[in-house]
Amino acid sequence: MSPSTSLEQRCIDTIRTLAMDIVQKANSGHPGLPMGCSAIAHVLWSKHLRYHPRNPLWPNRDRFVLSAGHGSALLYIMLHLTGYDLPMSELQRFRQLHSRTPGHPEHGLTPGVEATTGPLGQGFANGVGFALAKRLLADRFNTAEHHLVDHRVYAIVSDGDLMEGISHEAASLAGHLGLGELVYVYDDNHISLDGPTEDTFTDDTLRRFDAYGWHTQRVADGHDPAAVDAALEAAKSDPRPSLIACRTHIGYGSPHKQDTAKAHGSPLGEDEVRLTKQAIGWDPDAHFFIPDDVLTFYRQALDKGACLEQEWDALVRAWSDQNPELARVWERERAGELPKGWAESLPRWEAGDSQSTRVASGQAINALATILPNLVGGSADLKSSNETWIDGHGYFEPGHVDRNLAFGVREHAMCGVLNGMGLYGGLEVFGGTFLCFSDYARPSIRLASLTGIPVIYVFTHDSIGLGEDGPTHQPVEHHMALRAMPNLWVVRPGDANETSYAWRMALGRRDGPVLLELSRQKLPVFTETADDAVLNGGYVMRDAPEGLLPDVLLIATGSELQLAVAAQARLAEEGVRARVVSLPCWEVFDRQDEAYRHHVLPPDVLARVSVEAGVTQGWERYLGTQGVAVGIDHYGASAPEKALYQYFNITTDHVVEAARQSLARTRAAAGLTA
Amino acid sequence: MSPSTSLEQRCIDTIRTLAMDIVQKANSGHPGLPMGCSAIAHVLWSKHLRYHPRNPLWPNRDRFVLSAGHGSALLYIMLHLTGYDLPMSELQRFRQLHSRTPGHPEHGLTPGVEATTGPLGQGFANGVGFALAKRLLADRFNTAEHHLVDHRVYAIVSDGDLMEGISHEAASLAGHLGLGELVYVYDDNHISLDGPTEDTFTDDTLRRFDAYGWHTQRVADGHDPAAVDAALEAAKSDPRPSLIACRTHIGYGSPHKQDTAKAHGSPLGEDEVRLTKQAIGWDPDAHFFIPDDVLTFYRQALDKGACLEQEWDALVRAWSDQNPELARVWERERAGELPKGWAESLPRWEAGDSQSTRVASGQAINALATILPNLVGGSADLKSSNETWIDGHGYFEPGHVDRNLAFGVREHAMCGVLNGMGLYGGLEVFGGTFLCFSDYARPSIRLASLTGIPVIYVFTHDSIGLGEDGPTHQPVEHHMALRAMPNLWVVRPGDANETSYAWRMALGRRDGPVLLELSRQKLPVFTETADDAVLNGGYVMRDAPEGLLPDVLLIATGSELQLAVAAQARLAEEGVRARVVSLPCWEVFDRQDEAYRHHVLPPDVLARVSVEAGVTQGWERYLGTQGVAVGIDHYGASAPEKALYQYFNITTDHVVEAARQSLARTRAAAGLTA
Repeated sequence: MSPSTSLEQRCIDTIRTLAMDIVQKANSGHPGLPMGCSAIAHVLWSKHLRYHPRNPLWPNRDRFVLSAGHGSALLYIMLHLTGYDLPMSELQRFRQLHSRTPGHPEHGLTPGVEATTGPLGQGFANGVGFALAKRLLADRFNTAEHHLVDHRVYAIVSDGDLMEGISHEAASLAGHLGLGELVYVYDDNHISLDGPTEDTFTDDTLRRFDAYGWHTQRVADGHDPAAVDAALEAAKSDPRPSLIACRTHIGYGSPHKQDTAKAHGSPLGEDEVRLTKQAIGWDPDAHFFIPDDVLTFYRQALDKGACLEQEWDALVRAWSDQNPELARVWERERAGELPKGWAESLPRWEAGDSQSTRVASGQAINALATILPNLVGGSADLKSSNETWIDGHGYFEPGHVDRNLAFGVREHAMCGVLNGMGLYGGLEVFGGTFLCFSDYARPSIRLASLTGIPVIYVFTHDSIGLGEDGPTHQPVEHHMALRAMPNLWVVRPGDANETSYAWRMALGRRDGPVLLELSRQKLPVFTETADDAVLNGGYVMRDAPEGLLPDVLLIATGSELQLAVAAQARLAEEGVRARVVSLPCWEVFDRQDEAYRHHVLPPDVLARVSVEAGVTQGWERYLGTQGVAVGIDHYGASAPEKALYQYFNITTDHVVEAARQSLARTRAAAGLTA
Repeated sequence: MSPSTSLEQRCIDTIRTLAMDIVQKANSGHPGLPMGCSAIAHVLWSKHLRYHPRNPLWPNRDRFVLSAGHGSALLYIMLHLTGYDLPMSELQRFRQLHSRTPGHPEHGLTPGVEATTGPLGQGFANGVGFALAKRLLADRFNTAEHHLVDHRVYAIVSDGDLMEGISHEAASLAGHLGLGELVYVYDDNHISLDGPTEDTFTDDTLRRFDAYGWHTQRVADGHDPAAVDAALEAAKSDPRPSLIACRTHIGYGSPHKQDTAKAHGSPLGEDEVRLTKQAIGWDPDAHFFIPDDVLTFYRQALDKGACLEQEWDALVRAWSDQNPELARVWERERAGELPKGWAESLPRWEAGDSQSTRVASGQAINALATILPNLVGGSADLKSSNETWIDGHGYFEPGHVDRNLAFGVREHAMCGVLNGMGLYGGLEVFGGTFLCFSDYARPSIRLASLTGIPVIYVFTHDSIGLGEDGPTHQPVEHHMALRAMPNLWVVRPGDANETSYAWRMALGRRDGPVLLELSRQKLPVFTETADDAVLNGGYVMRDAPEGLLPDVLLIATGSELQLAVAAQARLAEEGVRARVVSLPCWEVFDRQDEAYRHHVLPPDVLARVSVEAGVTQGWERYLGTQGVAVGIDHYGASAPEKALYQYFNITTDHVVEAARQSLARTRAAAGLTA
């Protein structure tokens, strides 16, 4: 390289050349953003971010989110340079099987990656979740003397992030709450995958963020480290969330591809990499080259980080000495442990009671909230419908931290924010909306599932049982569409007691999200549902009389459990022995050993009926070839609940008839093979 | 009522009292918006909207969208008052089974309802689609002399609509394109379901829309018809899209519930209805009362509308005389008919070729585009990846109407806009993104399916086969989650030839959307796939040798078809007769008669294997109890495509092994019953 350049410039150029090399070697990836954001990243990691590379999970670190996850090479480069456990060999295995440098950043796979990003806009919302979590923890654990939780949340966001609707929702929420922790840098490079952003995106973005109550700045040259630094300083000293639009050049320095979409999502090509290195005075034959002084400079982060953590440890010790009880709670909650006896606090219901599972869930939330001070949540403007309100507490609002979150009509941001809160740790978080509108939040639910974040979804009005609001609000396909999502547990409790167990399953799970599907309408309460067997995901809820092998299995979930129970009695009158199987959670039931599954669903009993007010696709798993599904394979309608159940034939009569039908099928099949 | 009030006030009060009565009688619904927007609706329907109640589908009508669909009572009232075929008896059956006044407006059920709304923000985007469609048709059919297509698009939007992310995406797009047809009234009532909007939504909304390039106005008193009228006039004379924030009072006039969330989503209660009527000087004992002069006033719309249509008919005749060929095309396209021989234009491929189905789709689009001048579409910033570009045409951009739509990174708005375009009629519309990001657009895909709108989704990169981008971009659950959606056709073609057939299925469908799942990677082309049997959704692609009954069925979709084909050959070497069944579209296959389905999947052949790079949940439908599914029941990974298929065991070897396994199961079962 040219010896005349400053160390700072060499640092920046190291990032640029590594980015080219990494993507070129993989022959896949996005070099443009890492090159364009090289100065920004240099300034962030060397002057602003507070972190400890040897302890990526140091609790009081600043959080950094690369919302523009396609620029993953930038993040990997910075983690490597500053001394995280991400050796050069990993950079050289970018986008290869089993590497820790996947195409888009994956939390849990790579130290220092705070959130899985790539699907645009998600990281923007995750950062808002980090800020909310930080405020909640600071409010409970910081003392006047000791600020245990005291950090910022940084992000790099792209035009793509800002085009996505979730960025609007999350920015509006953050602006409303005045989350000054947020320092977001907008990589304003004027290029998206398809070409110049002016082809489709001509918002006055800073004006837009002004309208949200954000502090906004423009940096005319995003490659000028001093200018970037000054803007970051100004952002940090402003009490509002900050957006800094840095005018950058995608593929900065590439003679033929800078400022073109070609630099966005494809390697520059060997020749262009050479030309670019030559143009900036670097040896074109050197690959993955890091000048010694550059590495030495960045690796100062190790000592700096150790100092930061030591200082903080001392603070924690002093705080802990003065607040031993608080310290115990802090430790326990950060470890994700629940206080002894928490499950016993959940309400139990008596047979003969009648209650909707959403109301039962609201009571469960409030019972839990008294012993779990870190249980926080809210709803996307449906708190009374979702029954998510924690009594005795107010809203989290500007200037007042509290446990009820008002997400507004922003389902997607809600779930993106919950992901950030869940990733932050130390909290038990939930969010509510109508089940039908889980569709609005599906990309965030997917990322919670993919990442394995413990988040609880309180999704109510879970079928045509919601009645008059009609088909636009009535989920029918959602049970199956959500069950299709790997690592998501979908729990549809059959009565109030099962709802308490659903909450036990939800809080008991640490490695992924749990989605509760709850009824609007009241459901009868049963005795058999107050049984730990519910925790198996499926169980014999009411067996055939006298313990005899049943003639037919009636398998139900949620509000349709009562129909199976009623059908069992009716079938008994006809001399047919039916077993009612309640199956609130397929994912958990399918994880039970074969002996248990066969105990609940004996393989020899081929006459089977499923009952669920939803599409029947997928029920074949439990029905086999001779079973009959009672469900609804089309959209609902607007009418009172009872009229809909009758009209769509989700009734006891139909379950009885289906049982007869299935029995006839098994007899016919037996006759054929006999 | 008080005789001193003006006719105008009586009109407005009629809307208010009807709204209360309608919701009260149903004992369900949202009275607050209709009451609060009574003056706005009065001004819109009496002074601005151009419509013909006796011909709700008059092509040149202004479109009105109630994006805040929960205020449906308002729309029904206006339709009734102005003389649409919606009698009082229907208003009195609000939200009842089989009424034409469902809880939220449903297009197709109620004359004059332009779009199904309720899920918030959707209507906002539908309106943008109406405006785009109008421009496209105006560009092709209007002449200097005759403006055949010349109308505006109005909407009432709520705080909920404006909180939703889709409103950001759609507004940004509309502002960019300068769609001055749009006149949107914001019902700025300061109340959402959970309480005051200031609890969570404190955007400076007009500033936000300024930033999008919209014309914005504030009306301080949304109950002042003159002020509303003046603002609408100003909006119409501005070339930009317009947002008019009207400060209104929810539940206007209710002594105890005005300006409270209680008026939002629940009936006021009998007593409060009486009190409100008294307060505005109406007889509290009168229900569903429409003063004669009010009805006479509104019913002028019938004559006015007839005149408008007559004038337009005359214009069409004159235009038609001068442009007979254009007129024929106009008629044909509006009827949704395709020109003769269109299907023959689709490309055919030779066995031995190798092509990705996304590239095949791009060629199909371009082949079709030459004979279907009304085929328009685009991508959410992935045009080169999705292969959606129509050659020889440019972008639809400000000041230039064209057939390539640049939706930006706005999947949700894209699909909401496509819904509007599809509802408008006269166009064949498509939109592309990565299949994984269908999640971002799912609420709009659902409304297309529910409403039955012909929209084509070109969703590419349909599996782990996309390779290095990794699990955040690799769909696994999407095939099943989308198949779960009623009335959506999911087509996953197995090679280039099947892709041409997929486009035939898509364009051939008039009553709902078709979603194409296309591969990134190249796939071998087969001879047997160039067969009309593909149109059955599933067919015997390559049968067991010598026409003998097969021992085992290998059922595959998409890129995995080649594995089934290879496995068949391998099994033949072992003396096992396997039949390859290609099943690109479950929905269409399941609609075939039983004889055909049994011909393809003979019930007696119980040894079966499914091959699809996605979750296996749901495949039991075709596998029965002795089949084996080859799939991937977890998320993918970042690595080159071939490495992933190997690692996740979606291979010919595995299909062969699965076939052996299934055969063993059938033998065991036969042994048991023998």
